[in-house]
Amino acid sequence: MQKPSIPEGTRDFSPQEVARRSYIFDAIRTVFERYGYQPIETPSFEKLSTLTGKYGDEGDKLLFKILNNGDYLAKADAEALESRNSAKLVSSIAGRGLRYDLTVPFARYVVMRQNEIAFPFKRYQIQLVWRGDSPQRGRYREFTQCDVDVVGSKSLTYEAELIQIYDDVFAKLGIEVEIRVNNRKILEGMAEVAGCHDRLTDLTVAIDKLDKIGIEGVRKELTNRGFSPESIERVEQFLQATDRETLREQLKSSEVGTLGMTELDAVYGYLADNSLRNTLVFDPTLARGLSYYTGFIVEVVATRVKMGSIGGGGRYDDLTGIFGLKNVSGVGISFGADRIYEVVKELDAFPKEALTQLTALVVALDSDAHKYGFGVLTQLRRAGISSDLYPEPAKIGKQMKYADARGTQFTIIIGSNEVETGQLSLKNMATGAQQTLRVSEI
Amino acid sequence: MQKPSIPEGTRDFSPQEVARRSYIFDAIRTVFERYGYQPIETPSFEKLSTLTGKYGDEGDKLLFKILNNGDYLAKADAEALESRNSAKLVSSIAGRGLRYDLTVPFARYVVMRQNEIAFPFKRYQIQLVWRGDSPQRGRYREFTQCDVDVVGSKSLTYEAELIQIYDDVFAKLGIEVEIRVNNRKILEGMAEVAGCHDRLTDLTVAIDKLDKIGIEGVRKELTNRGFSPESIERVEQFLQATDRETLREQLKSSEVGTLGMTELDAVYGYLADNSLRNTLVFDPTLARGLSYYTGFIVEVVATRVKMGSIGGGGRYDDLTGIFGLKNVSGVGISFGADRIYEVVKELDAFPKEALTQLTALVVALDSDAHKYGFGVLTQLRRAGISSDLYPEPAKIGKQMKYADARGTQFTIIIGSNEVETGQLSLKNMATGAQQTLRVSEI
Repeated sequence: MQKPSIPEGTRDFSPQEVARRSYIFDAIRTVFERYGYQPIETPSFEKLSTLTGKYGDEGDKLLFKILNNGDYLAKADAEALESRNSAKLVSSIAGRGLRYDLTVPFARYVVMRQNEIAFPFKRYQIQLVWRGDSPQRGRYREFTQCDVDVVGSKSLTYEAELIQIYDDVFAKLGIEVEIRVNNRKILEGMAEVAGCHDRLTDLTVAIDKLDKIGIEGVRKELTNRGFSPESIERVEQFLQATDRETLREQLKSSEVGTLGMTELDAVYGYLADNSLRNTLVFDPTLARGLSYYTGFIVEVVATRVKMGSIGGGGRYDDLTGIFGLKNVSGVGISFGADRIYEVVKELDAFPKEALTQLTALVVALDSDAHKYGFGVLTQLRRAGISSDLYPEPAKIGKQMKYADARGTQFTIIIGSNEVETGQLSLKNMATGAQQTLRVSEI
Repeated sequence: MQKPSIPEGTRDFSPQEVARRSYIFDAIRTVFERYGYQPIETPSFEKLSTLTGKYGDEGDKLLFKILNNGDYLAKADAEALESRNSAKLVSSIAGRGLRYDLTVPFARYVVMRQNEIAFPFKRYQIQLVWRGDSPQRGRYREFTQCDVDVVGSKSLTYEAELIQIYDDVFAKLGIEVEIRVNNRKILEGMAEVAGCHDRLTDLTVAIDKLDKIGIEGVRKELTNRGFSPESIERVEQFLQATDRETLREQLKSSEVGTLGMTELDAVYGYLADNSLRNTLVFDPTLARGLSYYTGFIVEVVATRVKMGSIGGGGRYDDLTGIFGLKNVSGVGISFGADRIYEVVKELDAFPKEALTQLTALVVALDSDAHKYGFGVLTQLRRAGISSDLYPEPAKIGKQMKYADARGTQFTIIIGSNEVETGQLSLKNMATGAQQTLRVSEI
């Protein structure tokens, strides 16, 4: 008999873990809905043609492909099969792949339903995604993404409200965060003023590593990539700017850079009521790797726990172009659920309610008490009280041990005396305090 | 450019559909927790070795298998590859498969965590499953199962509480149902008394079809299968019994049949307080196909909508034996979410709250009003009111059309007058009634 196990990089979630995860998802969902975002759900697998080529070569490799049902070899590419070419064979034996992110399925959804959707379309999506990465600490092959996006409008009010959403969610979860913002156009402006506007991607990739490799490292990387010393010097000056005024002055010769500053100013303008509870920081070094961002970019880090980014996002000008619908601008952010879980755990900020769901366990001392106890139980449950009964009138020690294991708040011990009088003795498991009540009073 | 589409047998869910489905899942979840059941979650895919052979040959064919990542052909079974044997090749190129039901993963979970679980273990699981069936009306390749089971006890209190759970959930959803119960041991007793105890499976399969093919059809099927005319006559008598007393008398010569009647009586005993709001019916013709049931069996049908079974379950004596843990008895039921959805829809019983989440849309008439409106919006949201703002001060007709499309309950129209006075005009979209209030009053 095989010893059962689960696939590498996947997890079972125990009742406590599900409860804690639900606590986080519920907090996020509540805020999303308060801001007028609506949920959609897409299938776990898509046609492979929908996914392939959307995540770069590396992404294509990490996609989980589903083998066609039936005699899949009958339609297999004969040449690829003959030459044992795994990569080439795939498309002829696997027509579907597991969802890799929520963005591509969202784009597909918008294109397919463009005629029934009222734009701006504000949607959120909290669903699993799968990636064939090598599992390591905190990285799984199956994990939940929480994305919130609005498409079909360029209004900067959305940038502002997404910042408010981060602020609300993390305040709700008791996590103090720093919300870092920048604008891709500002990075473009930097490249332009530094005379390397044709090298924006290389520049962005290098700047993105500033946190990890320091300014020395960035300088070295840019040098290795062939940037001129003059360009590098200008870029370094930009990265040292700590306020928007300084940078606006430095970038004033660049039209796109100035536009980026203006956009960011507008976002700050909407937030000028100072109602944020967390710190909003302008960070000209914030680049974020994804090249599809075209405007606003944002990233969130917890201030009291070392964890890296627990959320991020930005504006993109062309979400749906890959599926033939042009000029749909959008902006969105996502929440890193697994990291947020770790932060809340480290801060010991999970509320007790997220841990126990059982309010009362009925403990019956004999067979008559057990039948009577079932009736009590029925009344408690009908009154909305989460409650349970040990399945038989076992020894009290065994039943109390079960009560402990179930983490119940109260036990109700029923013996012949209770059956006779209808007076029940209610024990608070935390304090040990007892009181005597009738069922209806409980 | 390809026109995007989704795989056959899968569905996208729009905001309205997600809201309606959540309404059903939340109702089910709330009742489960009130009865002391706790949620677990298992990975979407399992090792293929965990799944294969658990669902019969037909099930093995319907499993979705995931192609191994990387150069999967390198380790492929050379002979199977050479002979183009799809079935034989699978295990060497696909090590994982998508979850086919929630029962096998649950059994695996219990075996893996047997030392940390407090038995009786009461768990529920609401997760997706995947099957490569031919899609047809109401049958999908991806659908959600809602299972609730208790393992590690033979107490019949659980049979009783699972009936109460059905009763509670369907009362909550406004669906009038008939809850049909029987016991596998009663079917065994019938076979014994009719002199065909060695043909229990064939007998059960035939009886299971009674609803569809009628008593004539069952007679014909049994005859074709070689049952003797005497056996068939006895079986027909049993199936005509409408009360437990009659059948108990007919089965009194069978030990197992009598035990089945006694078990059922005990379940009825726990429910003798008559607190059920739906009809509980003893149905000696209820067989349920799955051969792993060993005692109590149950099935639920809606009385006012033609839909077939919307839930079912039973007791099984050996859930975890397949993974090496013997003697774990359990009992469980499941809810057919897709069918329940159709029933609630047909009864027009979805509450309005499950359809709209947006309480108010702020409509701004000019640029200043728009900025002011964003501030109003921030205050509404901070007060927990789900609200939104049209992204720019467009023409009022356009904004009101958007308000309609979003299904908002109220609009708040802001012009220069409102900005000046701080008095906001709130319009009820259903009644057309308007009232003038300050933000704090809203």
